[in-house]
Amino acid sequence: MRKKRISPLASYFGSQSKTGLAPGTLLHIGKKRTEKVHLQLIEYNTKTVEEKKLAHKDLPKLNKRNVQWLNIDGLHNVELIKTVGETYTLSSLLLEDVLNTSGRPKIDEIDTALIVVLKLLHYDEGQEDLSVEQVSLVLKQGLVISFQEEPDDVFDSVRERIRAGKTRIRTRGADYLLYALLDAVVDSYLDTLQHIGERIQVLENNLMTDVSNATLEDIFAVKQDILVIQQMSWPLDEIVRHLLRSDSGIIASDLEPFLRDLEDHTRQVSETIETFRMVLASMQDTYMSLVSNRMNEVMKTLTLIATIFIPLTFIAGVYGMNFAHMPELTHPWGYPGVWGVMVLVAGILLAYFKRKKWL
Amino acid sequence: MRKKRISPLASYFGSQSKTGLAPGTLLHIGKKRTEKVHLQLIEYNTKTVEEKKLAHKDLPKLNKRNVQWLNIDGLHNVELIKTVGETYTLSSLLLEDVLNTSGRPKIDEIDTALIVVLKLLHYDEGQEDLSVEQVSLVLKQGLVISFQEEPDDVFDSVRERIRAGKTRIRTRGADYLLYALLDAVVDSYLDTLQHIGERIQVLENNLMTDVSNATLEDIFAVKQDILVIQQMSWPLDEIVRHLLRSDSGIIASDLEPFLRDLEDHTRQVSETIETFRMVLASMQDTYMSLVSNRMNEVMKTLTLIATIFIPLTFIAGVYGMNFAHMPELTHPWGYPGVWGVMVLVAGILLAYFKRKKWL
Amino acid sequence: MRKKRISPLASYFGSQSKTGLAPGTLLHIGKKRTEKVHLQLIEYNTKTVEEKKLAHKDLPKLNKRNVQWLNIDGLHNVELIKTVGETYTLSSLLLEDVLNTSGRPKIDEIDTALIVVLKLLHYDEGQEDLSVEQVSLVLKQGLVISFQEEPDDVFDSVRERIRAGKTRIRTRGADYLLYALLDAVVDSYLDTLQHIGERIQVLENNLMTDVSNATLEDIFAVKQDILVIQQMSWPLDEIVRHLLRSDSGIIASDLEPFLRDLEDHTRQVSETIETFRMVLASMQDTYMSLVSNRMNEVMKTLTLIATIFIPLTFIAGVYGMNFAHMPELTHPWGYPGVWGVMVLVAGILLAYFKRKKWL
Amino acid sequence: MRKKRISPLASYFGSQSKTGLAPGTLLHIGKKRTEKVHLQLIEYNTKTVEEKKLAHKDLPKLNKRNVQWLNIDGLHNVELIKTVGETYTLSSLLLEDVLNTSGRPKIDEIDTALIVVLKLLHYDEGQEDLSVEQVSLVLKQGLVISFQEEPDDVFDSVRERIRAGKTRIRTRGADYLLYALLDAVVDSYLDTLQHIGERIQVLENNLMTDVSNATLEDIFAVKQDILVIQQMSWPLDEIVRHLLRSDSGIIASDLEPFLRDLEDHTRQVSETIETFRMVLASMQDTYMSLVSNRMNEVMKTLTLIATIFIPLTFIAGVYGMNFAHMPELTHPWGYPGVWGVMVLVAGILLAYFKRKKWL
Amino acid sequence: MRKKRISPLASYFGSQSKTGLAPGTLLHIGKKRTEKVHLQLIEYNTKTVEEKKLAHKDLPKLNKRNVQWLNIDGLHNVELIKTVGETYTLSSLLLEDVLNTSGRPKIDEIDTALIVVLKLLHYDEGQEDLSVEQVSLVLKQGLVISFQEEPDDVFDSVRERIRAGKTRIRTRGADYLLYALLDAVVDSYLDTLQHIGERIQVLENNLMTDVSNATLEDIFAVKQDILVIQQMSWPLDEIVRHLLRSDSGIIASDLEPFLRDLEDHTRQVSETIETFRMVLASMQDTYMSLVSNRMNEVMKTLTLIATIFIPLTFIAGVYGMNFAHMPELTHPWGYPGVWGVMVLVAGILLAYFKRKKWL
Repeated sequence: MRKKRISPLASYFGSQSKTGLAPGTLLHIGKKRTEKVHLQLIEYNTKTVEEKKLAHKDLPKLNKRNVQWLNIDGLHNVELIKTVGETYTLSSLLLEDVLNTSGRPKIDEIDTALIVVLKLLHYDEGQEDLSVEQVSLVLKQGLVISFQEEPDDVFDSVRERIRAGKTRIRTRGADYLLYALLDAVVDSYLDTLQHIGERIQVLENNLMTDVSNATLEDIFAVKQDILVIQQMSWPLDEIVRHLLRSDSGIIASDLEPFLRDLEDHTRQVSETIETFRMVLASMQDTYMSLVSNRMNEVMKTLTLIATIFIPLTFIAGVYGMNFAHMPELTHPWGYPGVWGVMVLVAGILLAYFKRKKWL
Repeated sequence: MRKKRISPLASYFGSQSKTGLAPGTLLHIGKKRTEKVHLQLIEYNTKTVEEKKLAHKDLPKLNKRNVQWLNIDGLHNVELIKTVGETYTLSSLLLEDVLNTSGRPKIDEIDTALIVVLKLLHYDEGQEDLSVEQVSLVLKQGLVISFQEEPDDVFDSVRERIRAGKTRIRTRGADYLLYALLDAVVDSYLDTLQHIGERIQVLENNLMTDVSNATLEDIFAVKQDILVIQQMSWPLDEIVRHLLRSDSGIIASDLEPFLRDLEDHTRQVSETIETFRMVLASMQDTYMSLVSNRMNEVMKTLTLIATIFIPLTFIAGVYGMNFAHMPELTHPWGYPGVWGVMVLVAGILLAYFKRKKWL
Repeated sequence: MRKKRISPLASYFGSQSKTGLAPGTLLHIGKKRTEKVHLQLIEYNTKTVEEKKLAHKDLPKLNKRNVQWLNIDGLHNVELIKTVGETYTLSSLLLEDVLNTSGRPKIDEIDTALIVVLKLLHYDEGQEDLSVEQVSLVLKQGLVISFQEEPDDVFDSVRERIRAGKTRIRTRGADYLLYALLDAVVDSYLDTLQHIGERIQVLENNLMTDVSNATLEDIFAVKQDILVIQQMSWPLDEIVRHLLRSDSGIIASDLEPFLRDLEDHTRQVSETIETFRMVLASMQDTYMSLVSNRMNEVMKTLTLIATIFIPLTFIAGVYGMNFAHMPELTHPWGYPGVWGVMVLVAGILLAYFKRKKWL
Repeated sequence: MRKKRISPLASYFGSQSKTGLAPGTLLHIGKKRTEKVHLQLIEYNTKTVEEKKLAHKDLPKLNKRNVQWLNIDGLHNVELIKTVGETYTLSSLLLEDVLNTSGRPKIDEIDTALIVVLKLLHYDEGQEDLSVEQVSLVLKQGLVISFQEEPDDVFDSVRERIRAGKTRIRTRGADYLLYALLDAVVDSYLDTLQHIGERIQVLENNLMTDVSNATLEDIFAVKQDILVIQQMSWPLDEIVRHLLRSDSGIIASDLEPFLRDLEDHTRQVSETIETFRMVLASMQDTYMSLVSNRMNEVMKTLTLIATIFIPLTFIAGVYGMNFAHMPELTHPWGYPGVWGVMVLVAGILLAYFKRKKWL
Repeated sequence: MRKKRISPLASYFGSQSKTGLAPGTLLHIGKKRTEKVHLQLIEYNTKTVEEKKLAHKDLPKLNKRNVQWLNIDGLHNVELIKTVGETYTLSSLLLEDVLNTSGRPKIDEIDTALIVVLKLLHYDEGQEDLSVEQVSLVLKQGLVISFQEEPDDVFDSVRERIRAGKTRIRTRGADYLLYALLDAVVDSYLDTLQHIGERIQVLENNLMTDVSNATLEDIFAVKQDILVIQQMSWPLDEIVRHLLRSDSGIIASDLEPFLRDLEDHTRQVSETIETFRMVLASMQDTYMSLVSNRMNEVMKTLTLIATIFIPLTFIAGVYGMNFAHMPELTHPWGYPGVWGVMVLVAGILLAYFKRKKWL
């Protein structure tokens, strides 16, 4: 029995609706969680790094000389989010986008803050399970706030680089930190696509030999996964393009080469999705042809054996009849003669099939 | 027996034609209704709200200090529509668009009035039935008139927010009211899509286990629903883009962040439709493959059993013949010998099928 | 027997070729007709209307105060067309476009004249037959000339409105007349699409119950019709857009709201075509799945009955053999024992099929 | 036996490669021919026309007062092409484009010369065979040189018009001659498409009645032909657009109405190709459905007859058994009773099939 | 047994991930090799050419009078790449692009250097195997550095032309050398496509005669190859367009005609890929139809033979029953009568099949 997969569409479309609420109403849309929300602050400049866990009411002030990165794991404490909004004068429209996890990825500049809402993909290789989480990044002068639904390690590589010292990230501002976090997210897309690419290859290798329903279910499951990733990644290009032509001063102009690199990665994401879709479409077509071919071969065997023996059985049936007057029955050559006829009939049919190239 | 669904195409394409009439002729195109048409006026400013039901001849004057929202439920009273047009000096071209419910969604600025024509979707979950209604919104300085075909509750959330007081809507002008109504309509699209998403998931879960015509009919029905929603939502992007670059002064420039939000929602509508279409296409392909596979399996069983027994029956038939001279019949090893031959033939065939991996 | 349909492609692609002629050569390309060509002149201003049938040599002069509409039914009298060209100083390139009925719809401004070439669709509901006719509209200051291949009533609604008096058309110039005629043509497209929409609905209702070749032929026929309409309507958008940005002064700028309306109609045409194509594609997919399912069900029944009886027949065959030494035959429990074995075999097979859910 | 078609892809992709050569190397890429290359010069102005066959070393000088048209049939004499290049100071890059018949259609302006490379289509109706030839047109002030791979008559209509006198072509310059030649080529595309349209119609008429492999092969062959024409005609739009916005002075501005006409023709080519592709896709889908339906009908007949007789044969087999104790055999109503049972069984099965609507 | 193909997707998607590293970290991503890395320098001007193999620490200085081409075969020596970067002051972002072989083709201008990253295709005709290699070209004033993963001969043609003397390449600068190398790469795409075109033709010729799984596997394999080439060639257009509008002065403006030529080649690549994809889609559709047709024919034969003999066998079975009272058995015309009935039944069935046109 195959494991019951939870469709990735479920986690996406099963979300609670917000229809009918006023824009700007703060309400957390998404899975309800009860764990405590963790706040972590990393504050750094070229020389020093400081990391601390914060209490909920203990939000730091903006500090012009350092870059501050405030990471919040969990969106279900709406009060906390409101406090954050008030502390850093973030508009309620912006906080609404952070809390609504059923929206689409977006970028927006409201007053002096820039917000990027993204979907993070988790691919559980063992379970072949794709899950989607929302992450929002808010950039203000000298400050990046990252909101995540669950504690996660996708940003650990960025933390490592900050701690490492003498890395490029330490010499630059909050806009570069935003870029580094975006890059970590897009890299996680490429990562997920690579896992899916490996699964596709396994499927491709099995395709010609294993014409079972399991193959079909796997192709279907991978297709659904790719459709979810596609829906999640559609707005990525738009977001990067917005960053590239942003002239609000919040993004330094010397960030462009890095953003161009990010643009390349988002294009690689969309091109790889497109290629995968075409590969899978081609695999499904081929799968269907293989099933047809296999059935054809099975049918041919049936035709052959049945079509040869049905007339022979008829002949045997004729001489099994109990009529009083059947001269053949008593003729000395009757029995061998019937055998001869039957061999002849079988031979003619075999020759016919051979000529038709069905053999 | 499955319930006979009324195709959503019916309500859309079965509408009465207007071909051959002069542009500007006022004629109600749509389902004929006979109920009385209701007029409701909501007048508000930051401090006060007033709601009243109006008599048909009792239309209020424009009032610069308040925002007025006149809601008209029912389009079949053409005289009333004409009176409305004369009272607020609306062009006959504009009224024609309001009355013609077979047109496509559109936005137009005529003189100092802005008209948005939209389609409202009602999804009856129990009946799995999608119906389409037209709603027109006319914006003049300080006034919004909404025309609906039937009394409906899609705008109730907006009414609630006006009544609530201290909400953003009370502090802003008629253009924000227009935006709030548009947002309510687009939200109802997302709502309908969510219901359809849930139906798709049910189908997806059943797909692998229930290979019946009912599944096929359901996929087909959902596809038709999505095509109707797509046709209805095609012009939405255009409408929002028009509002965003409108420079007639009727839309305040500080509405832009809200319109951007609306734009995000319309994009979510079109992207979700696209994803659903691809999911359904993939489901139908998979369904067809499953049907093929199942048939293949059934055929294989037939082949196996029939192909083994047909030759054996032939052998039995041979020794059921009544020839006078059949030496095998009297041979003491004849009967067990024939059994031996039959077991041998069956064994050879089984081995052949096993080697072909048909078993 | 189904009626032999004449494919609409025939009337379109079977047209006589003009390859190899000099551009500007006046030659009528299209079905040859021999009836007399009718000329009708309608001359009107805000106060008066005058209609008369004209003799071929009796073409009116331009008259600045009135709008003149010259309607010519029939293109096969090339001499007449030449006279018209000379009278109103129309370029030979323009007349060539009027006469060549195998070209595509187009708009062109040559010197001070504007020409619009369109295809008119006739849908014969009884015959379910679509035919295509070319209509050309030439606009000069104060004059519209309409060229039709056959006398037709698509413009009758416009004539009615001119005769009615006090209609908008009487208060405006020749450019509005051109718009009214164009609108009549586009309305006839919507009309034809509505007829086809009704046919699609009939097909949709029958789809699940009538899995015959007739359904398939109907789907195919409607698809071909839609492809012809699509080919005919592709340039419509282009034509309307050209009119909208025309700055030659021949189109008054206050015509814009009407042209926007026309633009909405042409978009409705193309969106409806697109929706119909997707509906039909979905219907054909579903039809094929239904055929597969039905075949599957038929096959299952065959498998069941045949697979159960073939082994039983074999058992009966064994005891029909005439061997001298078959101890079972004389055993008192032989006959009932064989019945027992046969019932057992049938029961095992039925249980197997039940477990496989084939029953 | 069906005639073996030479695929048009063969003549296109089987061409000799030029990879690895320096750009600007003059080498003839294409079928090798050995016939003598013919040069023909037509020189004309409003009053006079002169035609002569030229010797290879006898190239005429530019002559400002006349339009000169030098036609060269055959590209395999590279020396001649070089001489032409030197005589008229054509760049080697341009000559390379002329000689490389495996390139794509293109337009280029190099120094004061304009080159258009096109593919000429020959459709042999008898053989249903499509072949592709390259033709290059070079325009310099007062001179057009046309290079063809084989002597051909596609330009004969242009020659006729030059000889005729008093035609538009005689009153205009070399740019109009270029346009006339381009128009002849595009007309030949429309011609070829018309032939293919006729073939499609024949296929369409046969589709419902002739469900054989031959139909399938024909659909496939026409599809391949259309793909080749599409590949050949993709750059046509680009070429015409380049001519329209060319501001090098080599194209007179009063040529625009003619170029617009040419643009219409190229669009008609691409729209017709698109329509044909959709028609053929629809035909192939329908063909496959027809095959399925037919098979279904055949299967139903088999099911019916076999399923009715298999149980009856079993009953007969039972009473053909030779058990000593079979009381039914000696019962006086035994034989008619068995007949009764058999009729009953057949009746029940027929009723079942009737209820299932398989009959 | 068919040879196991290594999917080209494997070499593409199986590459080692770089997720989580800081941008700018130098790390070789790709197949690990251990051979020594070869450096070759070609230095030339109009008069002289010099070629030498370099030691790793022996990198030449920039030399304004000559064009220098440094070719590096192998990317696994990261130290060497770093040294190259320091010697020619290349940014670490640029070197990172060179080393990361899992990225997409790209063009970038960083400081005064221009980098083009491309994928080189190797098509092994014997193995029908497509492999992908990355090649990076860096252009600085007077210097081109080419980085390849493996020693390769795709650039040999360029070397030949440099050695030859008096070729255009010797008279021009480093930008022309870059163009020549790009052209060699794009030519190798056309080459690979030509090989694939030949394979497609072989498949096309076999399609109608060989309806086996091997054909299907071949179509599938070619499709996968084409998808890989498509993914590799998507950014080519972008790269050429970037070169065309580059205004950094690193590309001389008189290179434009050559770049236009390159643009034509990249378009030919993408158009050919598109055509191939449509040809293959059409082939697969046709293949499936052929399989269906063939099965249909086989089924018809089975139906015919089985359906005729099953009733006859039943009749024979009836008269093989051993009832004591069967009057037909002793009737003198019994036996010939039964034969008559059987012939009649067979005749009726044959006539029925003939009328149905199944024969």
